[in-house]
Amino acid sequence: MSLTLADLNNKTRDEFVAALANNFEHSPWLAEHVALLRPFAGINALFAAMKAAVERAPAELRLALIKAHPDLADKTQRAAGLTAESDAEQNSAGLDRLSDAEYDEFERVNNAYRSKFGFPYVVCVRRHTRDSILRDFERRLPNDVPAEMLRSVEEICRIAALRLDQLVTAEDRLPVHGRLSTHVLDTHSGTPAAGIAIELIELSDLGLNRVVTRAVTNADGRTDQPLIGGRPVPSGKYELVFSVGDYFASRQVPLSDPPFLDRIPLRFAVSEPEGHLHVPLLVTPWSYATYRGS
Amino acid sequence: MSLTLADLNNKTRDEFVAALANNFEHSPWLAEHVALLRPFAGINALFAAMKAAVERAPAELRLALIKAHPDLADKTQRAAGLTAESDAEQNSAGLDRLSDAEYDEFERVNNAYRSKFGFPYVVCVRRHTRDSILRDFERRLPNDVPAEMLRSVEEICRIAALRLDQLVTAEDRLPVHGRLSTHVLDTHSGTPAAGIAIELIELSDLGLNRVVTRAVTNADGRTDQPLIGGRPVPSGKYELVFSVGDYFASRQVPLSDPPFLDRIPLRFAVSEPEGHLHVPLLVTPWSYATYRGS
Amino acid sequence: MSLTLADLNNKTRDEFVAALANNFEHSPWLAEHVALLRPFAGINALFAAMKAAVERAPAELRLALIKAHPDLADKTQRAAGLTAESDAEQNSAGLDRLSDAEYDEFERVNNAYRSKFGFPYVVCVRRHTRDSILRDFERRLPNDVPAEMLRSVEEICRIAALRLDQLVTAEDRLPVHGRLSTHVLDTHSGTPAAGIAIELIELSDLGLNRVVTRAVTNADGRTDQPLIGGRPVPSGKYELVFSVGDYFASRQVPLSDPPFLDRIPLRFAVSEPEGHLHVPLLVTPWSYATYRGS
Amino acid sequence: MSLTLADLNNKTRDEFVAALANNFEHSPWLAEHVALLRPFAGINALFAAMKAAVERAPAELRLALIKAHPDLADKTQRAAGLTAESDAEQNSAGLDRLSDAEYDEFERVNNAYRSKFGFPYVVCVRRHTRDSILRDFERRLPNDVPAEMLRSVEEICRIAALRLDQLVTAEDRLPVHGRLSTHVLDTHSGTPAAGIAIELIELSDLGLNRVVTRAVTNADGRTDQPLIGGRPVPSGKYELVFSVGDYFASRQVPLSDPPFLDRIPLRFAVSEPEGHLHVPLLVTPWSYATYRGS
Repeated sequence: MSLTLADLNNKTRDEFVAALANNFEHSPWLAEHVALLRPFAGINALFAAMKAAVERAPAELRLALIKAHPDLADKTQRAAGLTAESDAEQNSAGLDRLSDAEYDEFERVNNAYRSKFGFPYVVCVRRHTRDSILRDFERRLPNDVPAEMLRSVEEICRIAALRLDQLVTAEDRLPVHGRLSTHVLDTHSGTPAAGIAIELIELSDLGLNRVVTRAVTNADGRTDQPLIGGRPVPSGKYELVFSVGDYFASRQVPLSDPPFLDRIPLRFAVSEPEGHLHVPLLVTPWSYATYRGS
Repeated sequence: MSLTLADLNNKTRDEFVAALANNFEHSPWLAEHVALLRPFAGINALFAAMKAAVERAPAELRLALIKAHPDLADKTQRAAGLTAESDAEQNSAGLDRLSDAEYDEFERVNNAYRSKFGFPYVVCVRRHTRDSILRDFERRLPNDVPAEMLRSVEEICRIAALRLDQLVTAEDRLPVHGRLSTHVLDTHSGTPAAGIAIELIELSDLGLNRVVTRAVTNADGRTDQPLIGGRPVPSGKYELVFSVGDYFASRQVPLSDPPFLDRIPLRFAVSEPEGHLHVPLLVTPWSYATYRGS
Repeated sequence: MSLTLADLNNKTRDEFVAALANNFEHSPWLAEHVALLRPFAGINALFAAMKAAVERAPAELRLALIKAHPDLADKTQRAAGLTAESDAEQNSAGLDRLSDAEYDEFERVNNAYRSKFGFPYVVCVRRHTRDSILRDFERRLPNDVPAEMLRSVEEICRIAALRLDQLVTAEDRLPVHGRLSTHVLDTHSGTPAAGIAIELIELSDLGLNRVVTRAVTNADGRTDQPLIGGRPVPSGKYELVFSVGDYFASRQVPLSDPPFLDRIPLRFAVSEPEGHLHVPLLVTPWSYATYRGS
Repeated sequence: MSLTLADLNNKTRDEFVAALANNFEHSPWLAEHVALLRPFAGINALFAAMKAAVERAPAELRLALIKAHPDLADKTQRAAGLTAESDAEQNSAGLDRLSDAEYDEFERVNNAYRSKFGFPYVVCVRRHTRDSILRDFERRLPNDVPAEMLRSVEEICRIAALRLDQLVTAEDRLPVHGRLSTHVLDTHSGTPAAGIAIELIELSDLGLNRVVTRAVTNADGRTDQPLIGGRPVPSGKYELVFSVGDYFASRQVPLSDPPFLDRIPLRFAVSEPEGHLHVPLLVTPWSYATYRGS
């Protein structure tokens, strides 16, 4: 159940701290700090205050904040219990459904990172696929401790912004939502293509591919909802598959047997989780085109 | 080693029959029949004579010809020995490398067909992928015996034409060669795309996908040889994968990270094994298009 | 100055009739008729009442209504004075700026029609270009009198709907507005193309082409306003010209000299004046594509 | 009537000089010079010898060679008589069919150039359209005398290469031929588009546009001959117009009325007269695409 910003502004100090206690993992002191700065005119103002408090905190506190985070995909810690927030975030990237090989890979990452830096590897999981987490890790491991402390705090703030966005509704929005959408134009008949089954698959170099969502195009050739929306679009590789063979067959368009084009895959990468990415398909039974739209 | 048509015209009757004994499986009587009609002006004339002899033969002989063919992918028969021709043909479709599940499926097909018709299921394997053989079978099983005798003879003639094409060179060609080709246009720079790695994969609903060939585009954006040429293009589903991410990166074109487009798959079906199918790619780092060309 | 529907509902009968007197050309009797049916819940209800009144009127009244309309592009009648509505409508299609040859052509049309049917050729000019008016005339001239009476009344109702739409604002809208829009995607850089100068030209087989509007694409690659909107898109042939040479040159993209593509024309026809027609351009310095979107 | 290189090698010295007297305008001394170097192994060797002779000639001779050329489009000189070669070349760019405004423009150019440099403006007309000649002039006028002497000799050698190519056949070819070709793919039916009427128009900023050639696509969607071939493709702006409306109508494809696409113009520039430029059209009744191919 969602709180409003007005609710937060009007709560007692203790209620306010309780509500935001885990906005930064196991760190109610941040909520205590900003409780005094109420009322906030908007959710961006509230978040900016929390972010400023983190960035101005003494190094020991920032280190403690980093250390308050669990390891990624760590079975022992999960068995012992995570915050509800951490649990949901890790599940969002499928970290609760890893193959044994993947678990081993994440364990390797966690250990390598922790043994070098003395604190856990923290990343805003909701902005990533499993593959891009491992890619992020490979890039960050060569850094030095100060660089990784800065980077960890940055990731913690991203985590906090997403938690706040889910917890509190306000008139303004935090800029944490990306969007992935598509559009199918039937250039054989010159109309939007309605009734095309679409599958969005997250591709993995590491383990198995995973269907993210399925949809069917509406009368405007679009999906009623964005393929991904209201949240970041996790960095990574995807495939959109369009069942155009069935579509043209159902319209009695003459086709070869088997149809030249049946299930068309568009394979692309997402690099800006908060961006708006539009991947349309222009299609006849004998040709197609796509492009990065916006 | 290839014979010329002139060689064949000049051989003794016995030599001629020996050379063509297995052009129709285990059926030297056909070679005997046409030996008398020499000399042939061309390979098409020779083939037409053999085909006419089959079609005019009494039903018992035609039935014997059909029965002279081995079952597809039958381990026992293969262990006992096939004609060299049958062996090579079955290997061309990978029938010597089936998974256990696939062997079981082919055994089911053979048994179902043989028990209904009383003769083996004959198909010109070189014109098919494993999937399309099973599809062909499903379509033919509901037929009646006379229809399947006609159809089997048709397939036998296709097999014979391909064997003759491989055995004999002449000034004319039998119309048994298809072609699959591609072309990559870099519409970012307005030039043919040279140095793009391409993989042609045969897709299977049944078992594993299989790399048919790998190539790299030349200065004209084409491959030096057709992806498939000098033989039928087996009916079935394929994927062409173009490594465009590496190409644009090597040209210092600004890309997102990871690149929006990296390995582009074009998935399509072949329905005319003797046709010329051209599947080009028009590509920038942010868009691409393809179409069935000729 | 625009009236609201509420104003119309609240006026005295005489004021109401005065306001709508020329909604049907020189025919206040229609306004008188519907005045009694007030209040109207919406503008569609008001229009439906007027349309029903026309359609149920005796044949003599309908004939008088048709005859109340002026000839198209008739210099004598224009000199003598048209209703303000007719005047503006004829000007919208450029009928006040015809060449001598065009005047002659329209005079021929008017005379031919009037001499066959005994009443003027009536067409809803705002839905047409000059060329499509002449095309419409050629199609209608072979009709018989009853067919043309029906058709004239249909055109008169279209004229009236547009007049009513311009005169009265209400919460609902009459379905008389089409839209022509465009969008330029720079597939060289993978972004919307901002700052591209666009010209929309009405093409004429008969006389001179005419620039309808000029615009420059915004940051989203679109124009701030539709190229045509808030009114029917006149049937006819158009050319959209995009100055892509200047655009790519200003972005320091390497080009040939002169640039391979400079001013790209897209030539297309509008056949549904009330439809939404979207004509996008996907462009690099070396390639482009367009399609009918919606 | 074409000479062979063997003929030239075997002629007497006087015959040889007579044959090549005007290969460099009014300058038989060049032919005399290279006559001694016979036999030539190929036409490229012959041309290289003549070019070397020009480049090594004393400045006075080179100046005389430049001055031996007529002004472009000069009525008085044309009335007095040009070499047959100059006459044909000037006609190729339509310099014998200029409007009065164009004559005035060329006269201005000639006079401005001659008064600055003291010799006529020389350009290889066959590589240019009228517009690109004027553009070339504007670029060269700011040069100094030595630069323009070099440039004039370069143009004279281009003229000579084209004259030699027309006069003499050999086993090798001079690299003076460009090519402009097209190809129409009907992506509505997945086949080459046969029977499409095509018009190639040379566009002029200065005067009137000019139809260069008309053709109809064959069964392969191509034209039997290149649109321009066997000669340089003159630098300049062109429009290719494809009558796709008639094509789709004749195939009973459902179209809007008037058809959304009827006569599609592709407007592009040629910048490399000796290059191979391929401008294909991929088209449905509702979409099309083009790109610079090769």
